[in-house]
Amino acid sequence: MRVIGIDPGIVTTGYGVVDEVNHRLMYVASGSISTVAKLPLPKRLKKIYDELLAVFDAMKPAAVAVENTFVAKNFQSGLKLGQARGIALLAAEQYGVPVFDTTPTEVKLAVVGYGAARKDQVEVMVGRLLDLKSPPDSHHAADALAVAICYLHSARIRELTQRSEENPGLQSRRAHPL
Amino acid sequence: MRVIGIDPGIVTTGYGVVDEVNHRLMYVASGSISTVAKLPLPKRLKKIYDELLAVFDAMKPAAVAVENTFVAKNFQSGLKLGQARGIALLAAEQYGVPVFDTTPTEVKLAVVGYGAARKDQVEVMVGRLLDLKSPPDSHHAADALAVAICYLHSARIRELTQRSEENPGLQSRRAHPL
Repeated sequence: MRVIGIDPGIVTTGYGVVDEVNHRLMYVASGSISTVAKLPLPKRLKKIYDELLAVFDAMKPAAVAVENTFVAKNFQSGLKLGQARGIALLAAEQYGVPVFDTTPTEVKLAVVGYGAARKDQVEVMVGRLLDLKSPPDSHHAADALAVAICYLHSARIRELTQRSEENPGLQSRRAHPL
Repeated sequence: MRVIGIDPGIVTTGYGVVDEVNHRLMYVASGSISTVAKLPLPKRLKKIYDELLAVFDAMKPAAVAVENTFVAKNFQSGLKLGQARGIALLAAEQYGVPVFDTTPTEVKLAVVGYGAARKDQVEVMVGRLLDLKSPPDSHHAADALAVAICYLHSARIRELTQRSEENPGLQSRRAHPL
């Protein structure tokens, strides 16, 4: 299963492509889409949209996960971030695969095992989980890889939960701590 | 010259189509695009995007003006609004016409002549300026018409300013109060 994680932003949108093969995570690619501040906002949004669609076309993900934002300062920063996030969600919907939200806390829990982990801890763990020789090309790419990992983790948990629902014995073992 | 004004929102996006013919404003159409809260966000964004593009295709505007937001409460509301706004800006850019920002203060100044006007004052003035027999079908449509009017006003001001720059006599009359 191939997933693309996205860390949306007007200035820089990171993306990270991760495969899960036989319950192992494998790094495929990552990168970032940057836009120049002097361009009008609609042209910057179109650049993000077009390049994300190009990444989807090239990578053919089965699902896309979009970060539901690191907490920002105020309404204006929320508005800016929301614009980039809306574009990422639309691009994934247009590409036609399931789109998932991940919150920063879910990402940190999945990657570091600790919901209040720092960004640098997330980056180190992304490198270890994906067996990277060198760190991703940007913080945004690292964040995006973390989002993809988080989605694959929770997909596995969903799968286990479904199996346990089909198998009440397993469910009762889960419901009562061993 | 035909302009479409947009009041973006995830729940309801209003649009208003206004022509300027011989320095007179003429109402063409207005409406709103609503999305159901139970739909996933990417599908709601795609609905807004698709229907805005359909409106542009049908109405063939020469420019699109998008409201740069009435001030909202907090970061989360900024994020939500930003997502809808990003979609509106992208749709206009994809359609291929110039896209303009208008701030709420500019809209109120242009329509009511008073930057701190209330929403109901804006609606009444929109009805008068466009000679409407009955009010637009929603507050969002009325806001969107106000945005279009605001754009046409400022376009006329830009035109006058350019003329005065080509004609220094006129410019000096403007620079010094009569």
